[in-house]
Amino acid sequence: MKILNYSSVEPKDAGEGTSKVTIRWLIDKKTGAKNFFMRLFEIEAGGYTPLHQHDWEHEVFIIEGEGVIVYEEETKLFRAGDVIFIPPNEKHQFRNSGKKLVKLLCLIPNKKNGEAVTSCGCGQKDCQSCK
Amino acid sequence: MKILNYSSVEPKDAGEGTSKVTIRWLIDKKTGAKNFFMRLFEIEAGGYTPLHQHDWEHEVFIIEGEGVIVYEEETKLFRAGDVIFIPPNEKHQFRNSGKKLVKLLCLIPNKKNGEAVTSCGCGQKDCQSCK
Repeated sequence: MKILNYSSVEPKDAGEGTSKVTIRWLIDKKTGAKNFFMRLFEIEAGGYTPLHQHDWEHEVFIIEGEGVIVYEEETKLFRAGDVIFIPPNEKHQFRNSGKKLVKLLCLIPNKKNGEAVTSCGCGQKDCQSCK
Repeated sequence: MKILNYSSVEPKDAGEGTSKVTIRWLIDKKTGAKNFFMRLFEIEAGGYTPLHQHDWEHEVFIIEGEGVIVYEEETKLFRAGDVIFIPPNEKHQFRNSGKKLVKLLCLIPNKKNGEAVTSCGCGQKDCQSCK
C-alpha cells in the first residue's frame, strides 16, 4: 500500500498546447499500477488544455473550480463534483473560465485497444513518467 | 462525452461487511467505460469498509474528511488530498475516525489478471452495476 498527499508530488508544466496548466502524476507505472493511471491537473484562471483527440478515454473528476469543456463542436460548463467521461477519439478541451484555480483528476488507461500506448500510457514524448 | 454531477447519482448501501458506507457508481460499463471504473464512497463518522483483500488493485483519492486505513497488520492516517494505491491481494480497510463525513474516489480495473472479474468489475454478487 502506498499513500501520499497530492501536494507532495511536484507539479510539472503540462506541455505543448496547454496554457497555465500543470500536471502531477499521482499513480503511475512507478507506483506499481498496471492497468490505469491517476493524474491531477491544475488550470489557472484563463488557462486551457489543447483541443485534441486520441484513441484512449479519460475519466475525470472536478475537485475544485469551474470552467468549460469543449467537445467536438459544442461546449458545456463544469463545476466541482462533476464527473466527465470522454470516450476514445472525441475532441476535447478544458478551459478555466472562472476566477479560481481548477483542480481535476484525469485518469487514463495503460492500454489503448489492447496495445500499450507508451510505458506510462500518456502518449506524450516528453512525459516524465515514461522515463 | 458524458458529464454529470456526482450528487445526481443515487447512493446505495455499500453492502456486506460495511457500516455507514454508501457507494455511487460514477463511471461504469453502462457509461461506456471498458478499462476501469470510478466509484465515490461516503463513510459516516464511525463507519468502515470490511477488512478484506482481492486480486485487483484500488486507486483512491480522498476528497473530504479523515480517517484510518488498515492494511495488512498496520494502520495509517489519511486526510483530504491523499492518494492511496492498494496493490492486488493486500488486506485493506477504510475507517472514518474523524467527526466529518469521508468522501473518497475508489477506482478499479475492469479486469484482474487479464480476465473479467464480473460485468462491471466489482466482484460483488449484489452489485447494482452488474445488472
